[in-house]
Formats: sequence, structure tokens, C-alpha cells
Amino acid sequence: MTARIVFALLCAVLLGPATLVAAAEPQAAADPLPSWNEGATKTAIVEFVRRVAAAGSPEFVPPAERIAVFDNDGTLWGEQPMYVQMAFAFDRVKALAPQHPEWATQEPFAALLKGDMKRVAAAGEKGLLQIVAATHAGMTVDEFNATATAWIDSAKHPQTGRLYTQMVYWPMLELLAYLRANDFKTFIVSGGGIEFMRPWTERVYGVPPEQVVGSSGKLKFELRDGVPTLIKLPEVDLVDDKAGKPVGIQSHIGRRPIFAAGNSDGDLQMLQYTTIARGPADKRPRFGLIVHHTDAEREYAYDRESHFGRLAEALDEAASRGWTVVDMKQDWNRIYPDFAK
Amino acid sequence: MTARIVFALLCAVLLGPATLVAAAEPQAAADPLPSWNEGATKTAIVEFVRRVAAAGSPEFVPPAERIAVFDNDGTLWGEQPMYVQMAFAFDRVKALAPQHPEWATQEPFAALLKGDMKRVAAAGEKGLLQIVAATHAGMTVDEFNATATAWIDSAKHPQTGRLYTQMVYWPMLELLAYLRANDFKTFIVSGGGIEFMRPWTERVYGVPPEQVVGSSGKLKFELRDGVPTLIKLPEVDLVDDKAGKPVGIQSHIGRRPIFAAGNSDGDLQMLQYTTIARGPADKRPRFGLIVHHTDAEREYAYDRESHFGRLAEALDEAASRGWTVVDMKQDWNRIYPDFAK
Repeated sequence: MTARIVFALLCAVLLGPATLVAAAEPQAAADPLPSWNEGATKTAIVEFVRRVAAAGSPEFVPPAERIAVFDNDGTLWGEQPMYVQMAFAFDRVKALAPQHPEWATQEPFAALLKGDMKRVAAAGEKGLLQIVAATHAGMTVDEFNATATAWIDSAKHPQTGRLYTQMVYWPMLELLAYLRANDFKTFIVSGGGIEFMRPWTERVYGVPPEQVVGSSGKLKFELRDGVPTLIKLPEVDLVDDKAGKPVGIQSHIGRRPIFAAGNSDGDLQMLQYTTIARGPADKRPRFGLIVHHTDAEREYAYDRESHFGRLAEALDEAASRGWTVVDMKQDWNRIYPDFAK
Repeated sequence: MTARIVFALLCAVLLGPATLVAAAEPQAAADPLPSWNEGATKTAIVEFVRRVAAAGSPEFVPPAERIAVFDNDGTLWGEQPMYVQMAFAFDRVKALAPQHPEWATQEPFAALLKGDMKRVAAAGEKGLLQIVAATHAGMTVDEFNATATAWIDSAKHPQTGRLYTQMVYWPMLELLAYLRANDFKTFIVSGGGIEFMRPWTERVYGVPPEQVVGSSGKLKFELRDGVPTLIKLPEVDLVDDKAGKPVGIQSHIGRRPIFAAGNSDGDLQMLQYTTIARGPADKRPRFGLIVHHTDAEREYAYDRESHFGRLAEALDEAASRGWTVVDMKQDWNRIYPDFAK
């Protein structure tokens, strides 16, 4: 059975989502998480799933309430040396520059076009929002989808030379499939842009567009030359990060998850919302997972001092909250889909 | 098979959603829509479902893309003599009045507490928003859920004396179950409040909270005495009506539906968004349905002049757009779950 899951996951990543459904079927597999080494982390996950899903378990949770939420950047795929969506935005600025001669002297565009990333960084959040507005608004949703899809299908990671969608964490794909095989509904709840993720999350993670929650801008509907059109406006609608994550969860899902996985302080409030009891009567089983990047050899090692995916407060709270911390180096026997190690 | 569907639907309405799943199973039922009279309307629905769902059909649509959206007020349940949620808000004002002595002289509350509905109406949209803010904000999501649930479980329609959740349209429940039996994912897309609907849509319609799209206010997350809490703020987030409906659909679902059902001009843009081709290459099959309230005896007869559920523009466009118009009086052989006629 294990070989079948591995093969099906591989097919799903390389070919499409249809086979991932097949991977989710064998609930009685001897080892549903073969890329996870034996140990406390794996045991905690498997024990939790058994407690909530086994018929007759005192902590049985009806399938409809088995909601699992996953951060994306740093939890399902890499976020170093910078967020993938930032690489997309920077590439878009370069692609659009010929239509914007004014950017040659206008910051932060001028710095970006000269490759001066320190000056881009110095422009701070305001500069970043200008870049996001210039690259993520002022077009239709369909146009943005086409652009994002073309980019994700061709852009390569600067260090590994691999497609970003091939730098997803294989053990987390196994975990998604394992939860779905036990009738969990899996959602992405990411600080990343909702429209940036949706074109590929179904193919890569088996998560359909309607189960993707992310940061978003306001939209406007109109009939344009008689064609129904949604236009992306340069106004922020939801920043689905930190305290925005429980808001995004309530807005899109409307019930409290029982399983949350993250990797940074941006996931702190989502972990709190999922795992802290509402009161003494709230006995629902709950699981919090933090992916701790500890593997400088196979991936990256970072936490408290990182620009991207800073992990400090959530790590400090993990023990007292009972969250399970994944030690990538120790707990995972492979990182990416087709890496043997 | 037909008797089984009818019985299962009845059980679902009276007892809970589990049996509705059973109702959705028999795809080969001789008549999946027994409450729909034979005729052009029923034929159009059944033909559409067959075209998109039958293996080998030239217009086959993969299950993941079979998204169906339904308006709620006037489409799935009644909206006369006024929107149900308005009755809820008015009842809440009365219940909260002892804590608000200032309402005795402050409009629109004073008029409402005296039962002077004409003066309430004269306060217009601004007055209504004041009532909504006073009754739908300033509490936690959990508190609002509890209040809405207690109300919906006890409040009675002023003319029939029935629970509002028993004044859902039986033929539309059949349609929801029929679509789900053919692997459609059914969503509610309503101008009504998302938090007002979610506590009961799963039990009554078989639509889980994560498939409910509605108007919403902004939320704020905080740890209150250590407990993760979402607070409803008095600021509007999305008005999920008219041009707001395609926005709500994109925000929550992220793909274009292939089936849309509504009953008023508030659904016009949702019908346009669902059914008008994006361009000459867009050959996806699409279906638009309008429930026309033509039955003054069994329900209500209204369209162009109604305060609630005004239907004029959408009716005018129906023929040229190819939308199917349900004539309630002619097309439905029953209206409510346990009415024989």
C-alpha cells in the first residue's frame, strides 16, 4: 500500500490531481506517512487522527467538523531566499517596465530594475505595497490567472533551478493526503495572495480553489463590452496573516478547525484559534503543528532572525500550548517530491 | 426510488442533514424531481444535468467544475411579507430595548418599538443599517451564533405560524439534492448575512458553512481573557447582492459556476456572471434559473412592484439570455416540505 501512495503522490505532483484522489483512498495503509521518521512527532499525528476518526473513539469528531488548515509559505513549500510571490512580483515589474518608462526614476521600481535589493528592502512595507499594486491590480481576474499560471509553470528557484511547484514538501503532501483519507477537509490559509495560489493548488496539493484562503484585494464586477468581468482593484481587502488568519478562516470556512499547521509567527493566531479551548466545556480534540526549518543541508535552517518566516513567539508558546514541533532534519527522511534523500 | 428520495428529504428537513446524503445517492432514480411537474422547465433542468454529467457527453464537465450557486431569500425559502433576517433584527431590537432606554426617542428604534413600520421604512437604508449594526455587531461570533440559532428554532412566520425553516421550497430541496447526486457542489450566495445563515443551512439545505456566501461585517480577532475570540464589528465588509454577488463568488469559490438560481434583480449579475460566455472560445455549458413567484394561493405572487425580491430587469433579460423561468404555480406540485398540495 505504501508504494502505491508514494507513486500516486508522485503522479499527482507531476501530472495532475486525479491520482491524488487515488492516493487518499487506502485508509488501512500500513504506514500512511512513510516520509516521516518514527518518533514522537509522527506518533502524535497518527494518534490524533486515530482519536478523532476511529468509530467508537471517545473523542470521535463527525467528518463534517474535521477541518484542517495549512499555511503555505514555509509550511507546504519553501519561502527562502524570499517568498515565491515576491519573486513573481519582481519578475512582473521587469516584464512591465517597457510600458512604464517612469519607473526608471521612481522608487521602489528604479531600485528593483537595477537589481539593488537593499534599496528595495529600504522602501519597506509601503514600497512593497506599491509593487503589489502595480503587479496584482488593474487587470481582470482572468488576465491575472493567465499571467500567474504562465509564470508558475516556468519560473525557477534561483538556487536549485527547480520549478517552485516541485519544491513542495513531500512529507506535507503525505500529511494532506492522510488527513483527506480520514475525511478531513483540507484548506490553505496563507498570507499569500488568494489569486496567486488558486491556479495551481489543486494540481499540486489537491486543494481546490474554494478551499484556498489568502490575502486579497477588492474586486469590481462589470459587463465589459457585454462580457461579465471581475477587475482587481488596488485596495486591500484582507491581509490573511497573523490576527487576519482567524478572520479569514471564519469568513471562508465558518467553523473552527481542529487541525492547524504553520511555521512562523504569522501562524500564531491561527494556531491559538484552532487549539485553545473556548471554555471548560470545550473538549473538542485539537492539534497544532509547527514546521521548524532545521535542515541547512537539505533545505534551510532559520527561525528567530529570519526576514521570511520569522519564528519566535509561536515557538515560545509551543510547549505550553501542546503544539507539535516538526524538526525537519530529524523528522523527515525526504524533503521534495523526487529527491531520494 | 422516488419514494425514498421524498422520505429522505423529509427526514433531512425534520431531523438533520445525514439523511439528505442518503437522498443524494440514487442517481438512477426514475424521477429525481417528483415535485416538479412535467414540462419545459423540468425538462430543461434534467437535460442540462445529463449533458454535463453523463460520461461521454460532448459537453461533459469534470465534477470539480460543477459549481452551482443558489440565492436564498425567495429562491430557497420565503421572503414575504419581509426578509426573514429583518424579522430577526426587529425581534432583537425589542429584546435588547430594556438595555437601551435611549431607543425610546431615537429613530429608527423608537418607531420600530412602537410598531410604526411606515416610519421605520421612511428611515430608509440608513435606518436599516443602524438596526443591523445594533443587532449584528458588538458581540462575538459565538454569541451571535447562539442568538441566531435560538431565534430560528422558535420564531414563527406571521401568517402561517410555521417555523421559517419549514417554509423552505421543497422542489428546490429536491433540486439541490439532485445536483449533488450528480457531483455538483452546491453553494448559497445570498444578500443575507453569512453568520445568520450558517447555523442552520447544513441541517435544512445540506449546505455546510464553508459553502455559504453572504453579506458580512468586518471581524476582529483577539485573545480575551486568554480565549481566542472573534468580535463582530459594525463595519460592512461585503454586501453580497447585485454586483457584489460575482465578487462574493470569486472571493469564496474562485471559479465560475455553471449553474445559478435566483429570483430577483439582486441575482441579475450572478446570473450574468454564470451564464454569459467569456468569449467565442468559452463553450462551457451554463444554466440560469429564475424562480418566479406566481402562486398567490399557495405562496405569494409578486415581481416588478415588490418591496422584497423585486424582479424586473432579470425577468426582462431572461429570454435573450436563455434563462429558465420557473412558474411556481404551474411548475411545482408542492411548495413546502409537509404540505400535500
